[in-house]
Amino acid sequence: MMGIDVGRARALTPGCEHVLHLNHAGASLLSQPVLDAVVGHLQMEARIGGYEAAEAAAPKVARTYAALAELLGAQPSEIALMDSSTRAWDAAVYSLPIEAQDRVLISRAEYGSNAIALLQLRRRTGCQLVLVDDDEHGQIDLAALERELAAGDTAMVSLVHVPTQGGLVNPAVEVGALCREAGVMFVLDACQSIGQLPVDVGELGCAMLAGNGRKFLRGPRGTGFLYVRSELIPLIEPVMLDLHAATWTAPDRYEIRDDARRFEMWEHDVAGRIGLGVAVDHALGWGIEAIAERNTPLAKGLRDRLQEISGVTVHDKGERLCAITTFTVDGVAPNEVKASLRAEGVNVSTTAATSAQLDLPNRGLDGLVRASLHYVTTDEELDRFASLVAAIAAG
Amino acid sequence: MMGIDVGRARALTPGCEHVLHLNHAGASLLSQPVLDAVVGHLQMEARIGGYEAAEAAAPKVARTYAALAELLGAQPSEIALMDSSTRAWDAAVYSLPIEAQDRVLISRAEYGSNAIALLQLRRRTGCQLVLVDDDEHGQIDLAALERELAAGDTAMVSLVHVPTQGGLVNPAVEVGALCREAGVMFVLDACQSIGQLPVDVGELGCAMLAGNGRKFLRGPRGTGFLYVRSELIPLIEPVMLDLHAATWTAPDRYEIRDDARRFEMWEHDVAGRIGLGVAVDHALGWGIEAIAERNTPLAKGLRDRLQEISGVTVHDKGERLCAITTFTVDGVAPNEVKASLRAEGVNVSTTAATSAQLDLPNRGLDGLVRASLHYVTTDEELDRFASLVAAIAAG
Repeated sequence: MMGIDVGRARALTPGCEHVLHLNHAGASLLSQPVLDAVVGHLQMEARIGGYEAAEAAAPKVARTYAALAELLGAQPSEIALMDSSTRAWDAAVYSLPIEAQDRVLISRAEYGSNAIALLQLRRRTGCQLVLVDDDEHGQIDLAALERELAAGDTAMVSLVHVPTQGGLVNPAVEVGALCREAGVMFVLDACQSIGQLPVDVGELGCAMLAGNGRKFLRGPRGTGFLYVRSELIPLIEPVMLDLHAATWTAPDRYEIRDDARRFEMWEHDVAGRIGLGVAVDHALGWGIEAIAERNTPLAKGLRDRLQEISGVTVHDKGERLCAITTFTVDGVAPNEVKASLRAEGVNVSTTAATSAQLDLPNRGLDGLVRASLHYVTTDEELDRFASLVAAIAAG
Repeated sequence: MMGIDVGRARALTPGCEHVLHLNHAGASLLSQPVLDAVVGHLQMEARIGGYEAAEAAAPKVARTYAALAELLGAQPSEIALMDSSTRAWDAAVYSLPIEAQDRVLISRAEYGSNAIALLQLRRRTGCQLVLVDDDEHGQIDLAALERELAAGDTAMVSLVHVPTQGGLVNPAVEVGALCREAGVMFVLDACQSIGQLPVDVGELGCAMLAGNGRKFLRGPRGTGFLYVRSELIPLIEPVMLDLHAATWTAPDRYEIRDDARRFEMWEHDVAGRIGLGVAVDHALGWGIEAIAERNTPLAKGLRDRLQEISGVTVHDKGERLCAITTFTVDGVAPNEVKASLRAEGVNVSTTAATSAQLDLPNRGLDGLVRASLHYVTTDEELDRFASLVAAIAAG
């Protein structure tokens, strides 16, 4: 396999000249081709009109569906374009016919938005939320999951592939196999894994998968997508409908369309969708395997550097780790660490317990600094980053 | 009142050099300041990162809320930013506690997306949809509405201020007064009126109002907003929640925020929201009254020109008319008229019965050509347009 030409990748990324960006899990740095595609479409909208530009750009938007399908090993008709991963996840989960006494299995990696939605659904439907605990590595305990699945009445397993609060990669393929065996719907939140790790819906056996554009796919903000397995599409009535999702055929009748776009809405940011397609093609051009192969040792190098710093603790857990690293600095709040780094032109983010109530408090943590790298990151940047963190830790 | 400096308005609109745009009710032509604001933010995202750019641009986004509040006569805390008017309307209506036997009053102007949503809600809740017919002018019959309100059990009145399929301006202020008197919730779809007509929520007395950016406000695609009257906000639980709409305070608890942003989601196209604010300020700069005063006679002039053409029929109805004109050409399908005009660099759109099942079939129409002008349109353009339509009509 060809490795990634990092010099070329950086030359195609204008931000590399301006910032040391370790916030790719927040929003990555746009590549020049993505920026050009989005800006080019906006300029065309201004020149000839928004609807007229959309008609002219229809093949580009079609490519976005096809590119995502290629990325996921899916069919284009199984893809719905969304304005975020949360919107995609909500469009899927709020549409499921969950009833009283149904059990929904979740893990400690569950993300704040998903958890709030599930708590609201529990109140609305009377369903049960069952926490499947971590194993000794800190990932979802597969044996515990198997026991819970055997208990019956499970409507859905919700798994976050890579949580917002750490480098953990959950064993999604194994979870998918157990769900398939039990005949239970598997919903995967891939918003932190898509673009940095291979995500193949056939291998995963997931019923539905949500992802977004702005993170490791390096697409525009306000973009995301939902995958729904083809045979499930006609069985799931979207919780909301408009005249794109359905056709108003008579004063008192409508017909819902039969592809995954039944979960979409008519109006959207066309430029963003075009940019998302270019971003996916950009990622496919490098190769997702090549991206993962570059990022994994790079992230290990970051963790190794941080672990050597006195007063710094790395908090990533899991058997398999990704491009995200989380840490704390003794005596310095995560937000202060972030602000100090920002003053040096270094971008990180922070994670609070309000995003991860099933995990951080359980580990006695109320917040973390999150440094997330990508294939454009260099060892020189990580050296500089580590020395800046060391200076913060030294007070 | 100052009139609009049309030369300056056109100079600020790059598209005026390229197209004869009569599709402002589809998506208007972006002004240069709006285009610059959106592109400028995207470039900043590429330069310093998406989250970092959002933090830097926070005052601009705050201005978007404030500008919309100013436009509507509302408070910024009563505004939620959305990616479309349909999303805004859905976020409001799907969240209402509508129950079996509740009556929802609608009119012939009802828009396809709203109607499909209400039909879905009827099936889900058992509510009744009651059609309030038109009066002799073709607008909602206020006497009929008053009778239906007097019948009791009305949960909501849904009104489309300006329908997608014509120049009609529904008497929204009068509907609001009747709803207020009856103590019934009034939900106004203002997506075709906002930016071309004064829309003041105090005067309208509406509970909720949905609008979008791309039409007469001349904002970016993928933008919209929801207004919710302040005292109603705490009473309406959004049908979907995320960690922006609510805070995950403990593993099994969340708290919903107390402003209109409880209807929003966290992730969004930041550049689009900034562009929307600039577009609203641009409209406020001209003055909505001045815009309406320019557009009304201009649209009358367009209708007069079209009515003089043999084989052309103008179909606008209503006592009060706006910047939208609809017509048919004998023997030429609306889509053919549109395509012929497009070949001449002229943009119009078409409306089908699937968008307006309560109106067009009732008038024996299955489709219309829609020509929608705005304050950048000139009499010379309308002359050219009329001669092109005359040529099409002459075969």
